[in-house]
Amino acid sequence: MIIVMERGVCEDEANKVVAELESVGFTIHVMNGVARTVIAAIGDRKNIELRRLEALGGVEKVVPVLKPYKLASREFKQENTIIKVGNTEIGGDKLTLMAGPCAVEDKEQFIETAHLLKKAGANVLRGGAFKPRSSPYSFQGLGEEGLKIMAEAREQTGLPIVTEIVDPKDVDLVGSYADMLQIGARNMQNFILLKEVGKLHKPILLKRGLSATIEEWLMAAEYIMSEGNFEVILCERGIRTYETSTRNTLDLSAVPLIKKLSHLPIIVDPSHGTGKRDLVAPMSKAGIAAGADGLMIEVHINPAHALSDGPQSLTPEQFQSLVKELAGLSGFFNKRI
Amino acid sequence: MIIVMERGVCEDEANKVVAELESVGFTIHVMNGVARTVIAAIGDRKNIELRRLEALGGVEKVVPVLKPYKLASREFKQENTIIKVGNTEIGGDKLTLMAGPCAVEDKEQFIETAHLLKKAGANVLRGGAFKPRSSPYSFQGLGEEGLKIMAEAREQTGLPIVTEIVDPKDVDLVGSYADMLQIGARNMQNFILLKEVGKLHKPILLKRGLSATIEEWLMAAEYIMSEGNFEVILCERGIRTYETSTRNTLDLSAVPLIKKLSHLPIIVDPSHGTGKRDLVAPMSKAGIAAGADGLMIEVHINPAHALSDGPQSLTPEQFQSLVKELAGLSGFFNKRI
Amino acid sequence: MIIVMERGVCEDEANKVVAELESVGFTIHVMNGVARTVIAAIGDRKNIELRRLEALGGVEKVVPVLKPYKLASREFKQENTIIKVGNTEIGGDKLTLMAGPCAVEDKEQFIETAHLLKKAGANVLRGGAFKPRSSPYSFQGLGEEGLKIMAEAREQTGLPIVTEIVDPKDVDLVGSYADMLQIGARNMQNFILLKEVGKLHKPILLKRGLSATIEEWLMAAEYIMSEGNFEVILCERGIRTYETSTRNTLDLSAVPLIKKLSHLPIIVDPSHGTGKRDLVAPMSKAGIAAGADGLMIEVHINPAHALSDGPQSLTPEQFQSLVKELAGLSGFFNKRI
Amino acid sequence: MIIVMERGVCEDEANKVVAELESVGFTIHVMNGVARTVIAAIGDRKNIELRRLEALGGVEKVVPVLKPYKLASREFKQENTIIKVGNTEIGGDKLTLMAGPCAVEDKEQFIETAHLLKKAGANVLRGGAFKPRSSPYSFQGLGEEGLKIMAEAREQTGLPIVTEIVDPKDVDLVGSYADMLQIGARNMQNFILLKEVGKLHKPILLKRGLSATIEEWLMAAEYIMSEGNFEVILCERGIRTYETSTRNTLDLSAVPLIKKLSHLPIIVDPSHGTGKRDLVAPMSKAGIAAGADGLMIEVHINPAHALSDGPQSLTPEQFQSLVKELAGLSGFFNKRI
Repeated sequence: MIIVMERGVCEDEANKVVAELESVGFTIHVMNGVARTVIAAIGDRKNIELRRLEALGGVEKVVPVLKPYKLASREFKQENTIIKVGNTEIGGDKLTLMAGPCAVEDKEQFIETAHLLKKAGANVLRGGAFKPRSSPYSFQGLGEEGLKIMAEAREQTGLPIVTEIVDPKDVDLVGSYADMLQIGARNMQNFILLKEVGKLHKPILLKRGLSATIEEWLMAAEYIMSEGNFEVILCERGIRTYETSTRNTLDLSAVPLIKKLSHLPIIVDPSHGTGKRDLVAPMSKAGIAAGADGLMIEVHINPAHALSDGPQSLTPEQFQSLVKELAGLSGFFNKRI
Repeated sequence: MIIVMERGVCEDEANKVVAELESVGFTIHVMNGVARTVIAAIGDRKNIELRRLEALGGVEKVVPVLKPYKLASREFKQENTIIKVGNTEIGGDKLTLMAGPCAVEDKEQFIETAHLLKKAGANVLRGGAFKPRSSPYSFQGLGEEGLKIMAEAREQTGLPIVTEIVDPKDVDLVGSYADMLQIGARNMQNFILLKEVGKLHKPILLKRGLSATIEEWLMAAEYIMSEGNFEVILCERGIRTYETSTRNTLDLSAVPLIKKLSHLPIIVDPSHGTGKRDLVAPMSKAGIAAGADGLMIEVHINPAHALSDGPQSLTPEQFQSLVKELAGLSGFFNKRI
Repeated sequence: MIIVMERGVCEDEANKVVAELESVGFTIHVMNGVARTVIAAIGDRKNIELRRLEALGGVEKVVPVLKPYKLASREFKQENTIIKVGNTEIGGDKLTLMAGPCAVEDKEQFIETAHLLKKAGANVLRGGAFKPRSSPYSFQGLGEEGLKIMAEAREQTGLPIVTEIVDPKDVDLVGSYADMLQIGARNMQNFILLKEVGKLHKPILLKRGLSATIEEWLMAAEYIMSEGNFEVILCERGIRTYETSTRNTLDLSAVPLIKKLSHLPIIVDPSHGTGKRDLVAPMSKAGIAAGADGLMIEVHINPAHALSDGPQSLTPEQFQSLVKELAGLSGFFNKRI
Repeated sequence: MIIVMERGVCEDEANKVVAELESVGFTIHVMNGVARTVIAAIGDRKNIELRRLEALGGVEKVVPVLKPYKLASREFKQENTIIKVGNTEIGGDKLTLMAGPCAVEDKEQFIETAHLLKKAGANVLRGGAFKPRSSPYSFQGLGEEGLKIMAEAREQTGLPIVTEIVDPKDVDLVGSYADMLQIGARNMQNFILLKEVGKLHKPILLKRGLSATIEEWLMAAEYIMSEGNFEVILCERGIRTYETSTRNTLDLSAVPLIKKLSHLPIIVDPSHGTGKRDLVAPMSKAGIAAGADGLMIEVHINPAHALSDGPQSLTPEQFQSLVKELAGLSGFFNKRI
């Protein structure tokens, strides 16, 4: 790492930084420029915390040379990771289409939806049983009852199911029903929850936090992986910006960037990413064109009666048309449907 | 609430919206303008979710008239809430000064710090036993051992203690040691944790999320309050913006705004808010001048050896000088130290 | 428009608002809810400024029902606007590919580049003669000499040329050379410049400001159009967010959103939008998939010797490969190359 | 500066970077770490553009060691700059209070306001004659007529006047009336305008751009100074963030940070910074407490009839009360009124 000293610091202060670094095994080069002294330290970044160095007298800034994540990095593993969920694979040469309503609300309706989605070409079924809602007065999900409905839908359609986990103590419960567990945007830095799902032997769908940097997102994946669970799928779902004409700003550049930095698969959620039904189809195509391994799309039989996120939900018919469009498009990106 | 219909929608679609609203008890006024039909609905906002209305055919936008929070609002309770923590009161005519290291690292050092802080004028002692860290490889706190050290420091100094809670299952454990529990920025929308501390009979210090709006922050307070715990103190600690020369952007306008919208006390954390030691003193004064009920300041005996957040920590001597400056200043704001 | 009065305002204050609105020709409906009085005003928004109403005693907020732009809106003109630049058309069924170096640096090099770009499939040639640079010590462009070089390149290749205008007094000069004038992101709200190019009979490429909302961007187009020049092409080039791993955050959702709100053509600039050469190709494809009418791409014969923006420039060979990929892709989006 | 090479680059690529740097006079140190090669270059940053280095093959990132601004930096000039405007000084031991309406609308009203402000304690009179408005249909200011009214007010009250300049060709005109020229937020990177006012011998009030970093802001000051005009006063007026409950987010940390990085005076504009009348007084005090040299406050005799920015304007009576409060407070910050 590189340490830039403040202007006019005495040699003594620079020596203290050097001593500190040498004491934890770094090899040091000191460069005295006209206006600044710069210290380069070669060694294992994990041996010292950057902000500890910043706290030393006379230090202006510390610039890390290496990335803080290891297991999640492309340097650690060159080839793409392919993750099996039920009888489908994410990250390989097939496009993954996850679809379903934001929340499981009613058994009959959910199962009917599942059959329609299967027919339309979805290969993973989504639905929320435990819903994190910004108001305590909003519908919070059916809980285990919702999980049972999802399991029933899987039995009838053969589609694997993904659902959100919000409480660390529910990991075994949700894990006993779901084929894949989702960590929502608001929990991306709920480290307790990340560690807990890291102990599970199930794929984890890790949504990007509302204001998470690419690096923080990969560090959240690292949390899960450092507990032994390497089956992490990333999901770009829009970030918070000053723009209010969309619910979030879908950051599609994250797709090729993640592909460069990491070996993990990445999918795109244009429903939360835009918050507007009209934008779901164009941004689905854009996501695929940017190189995503799949999509997660909200579909509701009757969006106007959805208990949450109706305005961004497609009807099953709209989803079916979109899949047809994607089928032609995906060939260009070495993906098939 | 106000519903603006899209341009050129047929009467039939407007009628559906009206019927939907009337079915849940709203009184309706329809206004047909030249370019748009606008529907005004008078009634209880809790009866229907806004986004459900937005999902109805022909609806362009839905504008709520009332705020979504009730218990936390100034409309619900006109007078300021004053909260007792140990033998001090937050929100009244005395400035609350919470100080201490980011993490409890060492018993002897912590207790020495506590005595110095007491002497300098602090009235609440802070310290982290469970630390949420962005890297799984960083120091994660001493856990219960840390809580014991804090309790010992309280015994010796008489200062009440505040510490962060990160795992819902630890609420009773942490509650058995601490006088006040802190919900950190990353957990502001960890609704499971909010509900859990809502069942406790202890004051809760609720930090603003990294990219939380004022409304979302008050909704997080509402989560705690809706479970029966009304002792919530808000803490502004900086928001995430494009600016990188400070760690966060301390949003001091939040102080007078919260005072207008809510009856809850609000304090300011200039240490996390700026991330830079040099800025802590001026932003402490600015926070008081903006009307804050107190400050939370990181103090470490040896910032250069702090296991976390050294660069933003004051030394006990620097803290003491700051308290002296604040003592004079606070008189102007009807607060005493 | 809708005016929400503060809680508990007296009838007198509401009456003043009503009188104010009636005096400028609005028709008024007053609704007295349990907690708030709401006033709906039907009439021409241009008759009064919203913030003037907000300043009236007792007003909590003013919600406009109609958009502030007219000429730029899809409501004003239903069919897509197609703009002719040289012998190419923007906004029709052909994909527009604008390419060239950030700055014109050297005559021979620029003309060689122009021939290579023409061969590769570009249909508009870009290049900067007047460069807005964040440092006064950086290369500021060749000025009129640069324009002459561009004109020479046009003569040799037949490609129309687009270049940035930064000084209102240069509008005639630049207009006498260029086929299309570009307003850069930093000047999107330079209203003097917008009015000046509004008087010209040349197409204007209007880049989105670094932190401009969709509405502000369309209002900037409205400035140009209100002076009589209807030939405005919008260009999404990334917005400023907290994310630092890309130079800007390319907001591709803006493409389908603009298509819905406006009749104007829109293109995407993935070079500035990402700031990274590796991301240009995937984000070009994503831009097309999102529905853009064209792309603006930086190409430099020797990126490592470019006087500005080398890291985001493609070589002519890389550009040629990209065009080949786009040729297949664009068929899916009813565009040809 | 420090150049970090990509993982696994061949020696040849590193050698090219070294050669490039040596050719423009840098002294080089190469460090070969386990995972990366790092090149340190000592010399004058102005000799090469950073982004040109980033464009070289194999370069992962370039980290500058020195700041890009010189004349504006505290390193260039240690002592605070004090600027004389009329018979008052900005940046010294007296608090500067600039006040007045957003726009000059009416002669009689403006002159009456000027007398009231003088009496209340203002020492600079502000008013807009050329108004940059986001809509072409909004009131654009009285132009030269407005300047004449301001000059008349100065004659009657003795207060110096400050007004915004938006068109480079008006620099002489505005300069012939005003004591200080204001560059508005939207024009902070209008480099043509910056250079033009840099040639003037008048103080320039440089507002921070809506999404300008501290570094970009100081670079804008550098533009003015590099033309020979060293009389630049910075004005923090809020930045654009995701928060919508205030018009902008007033970044008061910028005050002590600018004081550290630069010798230039800095004032705060709480009117634009918050957009809400209720927040102007608390944020004025907070600005002073953060160390600002003065304030710029919008005052209008009849805010409800202001042609722009009424909701954030104080009445002259409210301004007078605020000045009284500030008089006591400012003593603590070694400033007098």
